Amino acid sequence: MMPDRKDSWLRLAAPLLVAASLARAADPAVPEPAAAAAPVPAPTMAGILTAAPASAWRALADDHTLYMDLPAGRVIIELAPALAPHTVANIEALVRAHYFDGLAILRLQDNYVAQWGDPDGARKVPEGMATLAPEFAMPQRGLSFTALPDRDGYAPEAGFIDGFPAARDGAAGLAWLTHCYGAVGVGRDSDPASGNGSELYAVIGNAPRHLDRNVTVVGRVRQGIELLASLPRGTAEMGFYATATERTAIKTVRIASDVPAAERTRLEVLRTDTPTFTALVESRRNRHDDWFVHPAGFIELCNVPIPVRPASTSH
Amino acid sequence: MMPDRKDSWLRLAAPLLVAASLARAADPAVPEPAAAAAPVPAPTMAGILTAAPASAWRALADDHTLYMDLPAGRVIIELAPALAPHTVANIEALVRAHYFDGLAILRLQDNYVAQWGDPDGARKVPEGMATLAPEFAMPQRGLSFTALPDRDGYAPEAGFIDGFPAARDGAAGLAWLTHCYGAVGVGRDSDPASGNGSELYAVIGNAPRHLDRNVTVVGRVRQGIELLASLPRGTAEMGFYATATERTAIKTVRIASDVPAAERTRLEVLRTDTPTFTALVESRRNRHDDWFVHPAGFIELCNVPIPVRPASTSH
Repeated sequence: MMPDRKDSWLRLAAPLLVAASLARAADPAVPEPAAAAAPVPAPTMAGILTAAPASAWRALADDHTLYMDLPAGRVIIELAPALAPHTVANIEALVRAHYFDGLAILRLQDNYVAQWGDPDGARKVPEGMATLAPEFAMPQRGLSFTALPDRDGYAPEAGFIDGFPAARDGAAGLAWLTHCYGAVGVGRDSDPASGNGSELYAVIGNAPRHLDRNVTVVGRVRQGIELLASLPRGTAEMGFYATATERTAIKTVRIASDVPAAERTRLEVLRTDTPTFTALVESRRNRHDDWFVHPAGFIELCNVPIPVRPASTSH
Repeated sequence: MMPDRKDSWLRLAAPLLVAASLARAADPAVPEPAAAAAPVPAPTMAGILTAAPASAWRALADDHTLYMDLPAGRVIIELAPALAPHTVANIEALVRAHYFDGLAILRLQDNYVAQWGDPDGARKVPEGMATLAPEFAMPQRGLSFTALPDRDGYAPEAGFIDGFPAARDGAAGLAWLTHCYGAVGVGRDSDPASGNGSELYAVIGNAPRHLDRNVTVVGRVRQGIELLASLPRGTAEMGFYATATERTAIKTVRIASDVPAAERTRLEVLRTDTPTFTALVESRRNRHDDWFVHPAGFIELCNVPIPVRPASTSH
């Protein structure tokens, strides 16, 4: 008994069909169906993914994927250099300098963000990297944008760029990554140039889209977001941990391509510029699983799942 | 350094003012401001709440408030009998029969729901309570609806009913509670009448609004949602816990009015039919905190905070 346990409607399907047959037999006003063939079920996400060709998926790019190894496991973040080239380059340089190793998750604000960096402010950011022009939005030219069919409240248009939830303003010629669950952004002070990439956060709550274009979003957690989302909430102001012992240590943050092949986690993400993804979006706009009695006919950008799977062994 | 640490812009405010003065002095093309008086700052949520009269708040109704006591603390759920009268009555009867005491949190699906009930299906629901006509929506007549100024994608109109996020369809004459963070709904099987209130869930992720009108929503967690949201995720299908030891035990679920006065948690919730709340919504549609450089000019229903505070001692 649950919002949408799939196996339960399977369990109930047979009795319901029997009841329908009885109703038809007893009530002559109910016309016989035109054909005895079973109706073709509308596609569900599971069916669409099963039928998807290998070309509907792409591997994460190892040279732009971060592994943040925590005591409880690995958080895998795919960076989006096309949307924030200088900030991503800064983060990758910090990672290669082992900047994050031994630092901590220092903030956990319920229904908002998990944030990590140097809680003591003691670790020096390398010279020349302390400030950075923000990359809140990018020229949309050259970016492949797959529009969501539904309207968006926060932007003129919502959609996807290369597997990342995004938005754009055609009149201004700009596109940007959006604050959906799992989005990774760059903490900053009031000075927009203070976000140098040495302090990052991931969204762990209801999409805080009001942060869009106020922060440089650099990528998305592709696996392991639950390791952050299930951490105890900080009890100091804004969800910071009140004491050092409450924080979670970061063992290492590494770029996947710097990790020995045997230690890599090979993932694939569904391409968002494919017929498979278009069908998936439609299957979520109108849920046809038998459990649903009122298909929404609409979907918010941040409710669209972007499936991730282990890479097939042939890769 | 963070998405919106309030104290950091205070720290930076003085140097920025100095820089602005220098710019004016050096560049004759910059006109002097018409008056030397400091601009009146636009109201922030904190300022609005500080200025709110006592009448802008209401106490939770003890006879329709549940305390779910877990080992880690108390989850406080305010029920909404006006929106789901029969289901709320069923739940209150189950609670008074101590139905939930000793049961468990049995499902924790990341970015979706925490769900509780009888994992073994062994506890009998009292006679006559096994099925219940669903209350997915109610006639809107008699319900005080405060509309959100922004459009909603999932419903003709979004807003608030007595402190609960809600939606309505004026043409159909219906209103319903929506699946925002913290919403509490009734688990069910495929049969809509199978949701009798003996298995409940709370939303702990990005608002699953596609569940609206597919489930009877009975109320909202007013305090302690983080106790559910920070639980380890279940690893079986759909976030169910694979083993009994992973589950979190429910000590008791009680109606506040059945709890000795000394053990009650007295809370107040901001009224949503007040000028204070209207001002709060506007302060969140366009964030004027200095940290923001791009006010959204829009807010999704589920991003509107509904403040809760300890009741004043005079109550």
